[in-house]
Amino acid sequence: MTAFTRTQNRAANALRPIKITRGYTVHAEGSVLIEFGATKVLCTASVEEKVPPHKRGSGEGWVTAEYGMLPRATHTRSDREAARGKQSGRTQEIQRLIGRSLRAVFDLKLLGERTIQLDCDVLQADGGTRTAAITGAFVAAQDAVNGLLAKGKIAQSPITAPVAAISVGIVDGTPLLDLEYVEDSACDTDMNVVMTGAGHFVEVQGTAEGVAFSRAEMTALLDLAEKGIGELMVLQQQALAA
Amino acid sequence: MTAFTRTQNRAANALRPIKITRGYTVHAEGSVLIEFGATKVLCTASVEEKVPPHKRGSGEGWVTAEYGMLPRATHTRSDREAARGKQSGRTQEIQRLIGRSLRAVFDLKLLGERTIQLDCDVLQADGGTRTAAITGAFVAAQDAVNGLLAKGKIAQSPITAPVAAISVGIVDGTPLLDLEYVEDSACDTDMNVVMTGAGHFVEVQGTAEGVAFSRAEMTALLDLAEKGIGELMVLQQQALAA
Amino acid sequence: MTAFTRTQNRAANALRPIKITRGYTVHAEGSVLIEFGATKVLCTASVEEKVPPHKRGSGEGWVTAEYGMLPRATHTRSDREAARGKQSGRTQEIQRLIGRSLRAVFDLKLLGERTIQLDCDVLQADGGTRTAAITGAFVAAQDAVNGLLAKGKIAQSPITAPVAAISVGIVDGTPLLDLEYVEDSACDTDMNVVMTGAGHFVEVQGTAEGVAFSRAEMTALLDLAEKGIGELMVLQQQALAA
Amino acid sequence: MTAFTRTQNRAANALRPIKITRGYTVHAEGSVLIEFGATKVLCTASVEEKVPPHKRGSGEGWVTAEYGMLPRATHTRSDREAARGKQSGRTQEIQRLIGRSLRAVFDLKLLGERTIQLDCDVLQADGGTRTAAITGAFVAAQDAVNGLLAKGKIAQSPITAPVAAISVGIVDGTPLLDLEYVEDSACDTDMNVVMTGAGHFVEVQGTAEGVAFSRAEMTALLDLAEKGIGELMVLQQQALAA
Amino acid sequence: MTAFTRTQNRAANALRPIKITRGYTVHAEGSVLIEFGATKVLCTASVEEKVPPHKRGSGEGWVTAEYGMLPRATHTRSDREAARGKQSGRTQEIQRLIGRSLRAVFDLKLLGERTIQLDCDVLQADGGTRTAAITGAFVAAQDAVNGLLAKGKIAQSPITAPVAAISVGIVDGTPLLDLEYVEDSACDTDMNVVMTGAGHFVEVQGTAEGVAFSRAEMTALLDLAEKGIGELMVLQQQALAA
Amino acid sequence: MTAFTRTQNRAANALRPIKITRGYTVHAEGSVLIEFGATKVLCTASVEEKVPPHKRGSGEGWVTAEYGMLPRATHTRSDREAARGKQSGRTQEIQRLIGRSLRAVFDLKLLGERTIQLDCDVLQADGGTRTAAITGAFVAAQDAVNGLLAKGKIAQSPITAPVAAISVGIVDGTPLLDLEYVEDSACDTDMNVVMTGAGHFVEVQGTAEGVAFSRAEMTALLDLAEKGIGELMVLQQQALAA
Repeated sequence: MTAFTRTQNRAANALRPIKITRGYTVHAEGSVLIEFGATKVLCTASVEEKVPPHKRGSGEGWVTAEYGMLPRATHTRSDREAARGKQSGRTQEIQRLIGRSLRAVFDLKLLGERTIQLDCDVLQADGGTRTAAITGAFVAAQDAVNGLLAKGKIAQSPITAPVAAISVGIVDGTPLLDLEYVEDSACDTDMNVVMTGAGHFVEVQGTAEGVAFSRAEMTALLDLAEKGIGELMVLQQQALAA
Repeated sequence: MTAFTRTQNRAANALRPIKITRGYTVHAEGSVLIEFGATKVLCTASVEEKVPPHKRGSGEGWVTAEYGMLPRATHTRSDREAARGKQSGRTQEIQRLIGRSLRAVFDLKLLGERTIQLDCDVLQADGGTRTAAITGAFVAAQDAVNGLLAKGKIAQSPITAPVAAISVGIVDGTPLLDLEYVEDSACDTDMNVVMTGAGHFVEVQGTAEGVAFSRAEMTALLDLAEKGIGELMVLQQQALAA
Repeated sequence: MTAFTRTQNRAANALRPIKITRGYTVHAEGSVLIEFGATKVLCTASVEEKVPPHKRGSGEGWVTAEYGMLPRATHTRSDREAARGKQSGRTQEIQRLIGRSLRAVFDLKLLGERTIQLDCDVLQADGGTRTAAITGAFVAAQDAVNGLLAKGKIAQSPITAPVAAISVGIVDGTPLLDLEYVEDSACDTDMNVVMTGAGHFVEVQGTAEGVAFSRAEMTALLDLAEKGIGELMVLQQQALAA
Repeated sequence: MTAFTRTQNRAANALRPIKITRGYTVHAEGSVLIEFGATKVLCTASVEEKVPPHKRGSGEGWVTAEYGMLPRATHTRSDREAARGKQSGRTQEIQRLIGRSLRAVFDLKLLGERTIQLDCDVLQADGGTRTAAITGAFVAAQDAVNGLLAKGKIAQSPITAPVAAISVGIVDGTPLLDLEYVEDSACDTDMNVVMTGAGHFVEVQGTAEGVAFSRAEMTALLDLAEKGIGELMVLQQQALAA
Repeated sequence: MTAFTRTQNRAANALRPIKITRGYTVHAEGSVLIEFGATKVLCTASVEEKVPPHKRGSGEGWVTAEYGMLPRATHTRSDREAARGKQSGRTQEIQRLIGRSLRAVFDLKLLGERTIQLDCDVLQADGGTRTAAITGAFVAAQDAVNGLLAKGKIAQSPITAPVAAISVGIVDGTPLLDLEYVEDSACDTDMNVVMTGAGHFVEVQGTAEGVAFSRAEMTALLDLAEKGIGELMVLQQQALAA
Repeated sequence: MTAFTRTQNRAANALRPIKITRGYTVHAEGSVLIEFGATKVLCTASVEEKVPPHKRGSGEGWVTAEYGMLPRATHTRSDREAARGKQSGRTQEIQRLIGRSLRAVFDLKLLGERTIQLDCDVLQADGGTRTAAITGAFVAAQDAVNGLLAKGKIAQSPITAPVAAISVGIVDGTPLLDLEYVEDSACDTDMNVVMTGAGHFVEVQGTAEGVAFSRAEMTALLDLAEKGIGELMVLQQQALAA
């Protein structure tokens, strides 16, 4: 129906090559470099034996995330947020999304009064950094949990299901899976979908950048996202089994 | 199907009483107090004969929004953001959503090099402040545009369609329309939907606060939202015709 | 003696129409909309069962205030202080004045170790926002204190006297009571006076914007202020009795 | 009428020893160390050949002030405002007062499009820092203006009158002139008065710290202030003539 | 002379294994991952066709640097500077050092009115991050300059010499080259030395963390640094030739 | 050997006239005005009976420093850091240097759990403010320690040695001691050296502003610095004996 051609003739419903590297850095309890094509995000999970004020004395733990992008992760250099003195609204939106997505698959009671702090830093950006971050952060979090189990700090895993995320969008009328930067810039509708291993939705965030989208288009996008997330979960499990 | 009882026996698919008061304050080019039940948001539209740097010289205008909440709009007092020295991530997320939603129904070329600045300030909160803000901001923006047309500053309206928003959610397994605060706090899934007069989606933001939601639940929620937004648009037009 | 004509032929020594609406919003322990003509300020009193560090363990309570103005409360839009990341010097000056004025009529020992936090937010500005804020905040504080008495949290009212405030100024050589915006902008001298029910001064802040003022002019201004504050106190009591 | 004894048996209506040292530092166009007893404030006047945005192209100049206190100017060390990242409300109030007071005796048209920036930094504090600052800043400003006249940059002095300031207060029922720190802490009422050489008021800021003050007390305080400011103006002229 | 044993029996005067990877990320004009043992720093050079205000219209360019550390680059997680809202004193010190060091080998006139912005981000820290950053930034800067030459934007290289840096220190009385983290924590004296290819000093920053150091010790440290920097420069040239 | 002539024919290896005034202000436990020629820095030492978090419960004390410059200490006015809302990188670098230098001569165990806070504020700048600050801060710290000994709060002095600092540099090929502003601006190399009474180095910070410096030049500079610091220590002891 459309003549739109993707980089390297990728099919409209195909993911980019995905690569998940565990143990990318040595200090963190979980450290994963995740690549969605040219997008590279370093996700670390740090275990801290304390919780934020609203959880103190609750017997429950906490899972939270921060997101950043190196200044030259992008085509043109963007300002360093630490130098400007504040995180942009976009950054805050993304890190709140990552935190909520991971908490959705955690039983905070089983975690005990400790925090898993996820840091997702984009080394190189080519679209889909937030979905790569969620998908990689899950693997880092699983490694951190495995460490807690191995040390006997917890008896049972607080992780209730895997979680992964993908972007979908409509470019020139065609629904596409896993948008890269040029597609993301050109798309009319952009949707980020986060799902659990059970095939349920954790987050759906669809935005019409140009023309508003119809109910039928929404259906097509959700179908694509379900397919992609299913594939990502296989890759997560393969990486964790390695 | 469920035993959940809403305040004042409201039906699961019913909006709260909606009230739209134009001309609520005197200085702004558009000034609307919108009430969704006990939620009260003052939406003003200010016309400024300048544009932000990224639009200068483009011949295009800009539409943007800011959101705030009076410290005691809520059950317990929250810190004043001006005193703390920064807007929260939640505030930034909401004002970015309002801005995108309104821009989706503006032809910025027809607006000319001027800015419509929307300020949405919550006087009293009882759930649904962001959807009330979008719905009220549209009416304020329409008033501002009518003023520009009346003064001959623009020849043709840059507004391409109405826009309105509503929240939907699942509480104790039941899909509900237009959540009030106690429902919002209790819900498993919370979704904010923004639509145009043509029945298309501008934004869909669904979040599983507790259990992840199924595709079938998503379908039910979107159905509810479509119904509610249709009703809101009738009320917007009635208010504008008054 | 002068040809200066006020809006609606108001007499030089007359207040604007004053309106005090209690219970304007539902969550706060005291919530008052006060109107001095077109100036509208929402004053809420929040009771918090804690005190700031300098009062901890003292057995005494604290009364403090914050002040804000909605961006489009004024003729032209002013920046949102939360977005700019700081409160202006003017805002800080005003909120410190409101706090001192209210503390002047509180016996902090009788209040016990709790805080009454006053929030004065200007919905619409037409001169005199700080004096309206003080006058309205007293009513909101009285409501909050009545609530504490009713719940048996305190046995005796910590309020020792009513307090109210008014602006006076010299415009074109004529001393005027209760300046509205156009008078305030044009005046040579602007004075804000805060008094107790006993007819004593809590604050006198006079500023020569243009020509410095003589001792005789000061006397005339204080006479006017005494008259106006006496009238405001009658209105406060009527509102509280309603 | 009272048994209150001041340091070194100072009379109730006497100033502390006042010392005005011109040329205290070498770089500024005006540099004055002013001492009110143990209170020492360094006041510099810097001439800058530019004006702030609101004066650009107006043909008028600007006079403004900043105020600071060295961390250990006081009995116990206070935080450094530069390290905390913001100026306190008190600091902003004081520097706004100094700026207004000086502008009251400047004809900004005669100054031309340049700025006189006054910096008042407290080296040692013992009460009355803001009144010392205003009194010293006038001398520094006069020196800066004399420099402009000498260099031929302006043909006529923009200074229309001298300006000086003093604090007065009621301690244990006695009106006192020029409060030192222990008196200031103990006083019921504290008033700062700024006057011109013509004997007119520029600013009157009276605050009841404890008991509210009567009209008769106000009269007594203004009498004292008039006397003190008259004496300060003699000392200013002597310093400038030296 | 001492019994101190280094990791993997490294000699006191030996560098750790050094690895320089060019083209580590794709967007920047120069992108180098430099590894000093377990210390890994990503250095990017971005060319921007503009200069900061103090260089505008001068015909000269500018070279500057920013430094950051990912939160979990270290053994225990450190706060994200962007989230805290400011860069630490340590960060600012380091980025100023990197900027000065690189400018020391640039002829800013030959660069023309453009900026080379160096970003040095620590992915993994094990001591010596600032010296690795300088050494890697030089390679990234050279790549950026080569790109400008290749595109004909400049006719002659503005780089006047190579520059590299190393740390030296005294641990338990023994002078050591290229301190790793455990050595750095234990050392009495820590010195960072920056040199040009001509064997001259650009920066020498020696700090006695514990006992002050003698002139003889200083001599020994400078000897070590000269040796190490000589070796680093060979490695830089090999990397650039690859 | 060179034709460079210093102000007032000062010899290349001569200090400027040094003046150390103890008790310059009255409130601080130590208060010293130190003058290196026209450079004047007020150094106060404040004793606080508490320590920062990282020392709590350690039985050890802390010594730290803050540095500031009055806006018109310099030839042209610089922005007030408190008004800008942050300390510059330069300021932070200097105050960290002062803190480290003083801690190098303190036995923190002997100090007990209390803090000596040094504040170094530049009243007038003409080069060498950081070295004057360190040299003066030592005298202020000694006065504060003497006070603690006199009050019996500590039994033994925690000061292990005197500490002082001087700048040296190469101007037009000539090594100079104690650079004043015009020399500092013109120099190729600028080095700040901090030494103890035992003739050992605490800090050496050399920077090539223009041409990199040779090992021989470094040797000459260190020789000069040793000479100058020896003389400063005599002056410190004379001041303390006065």
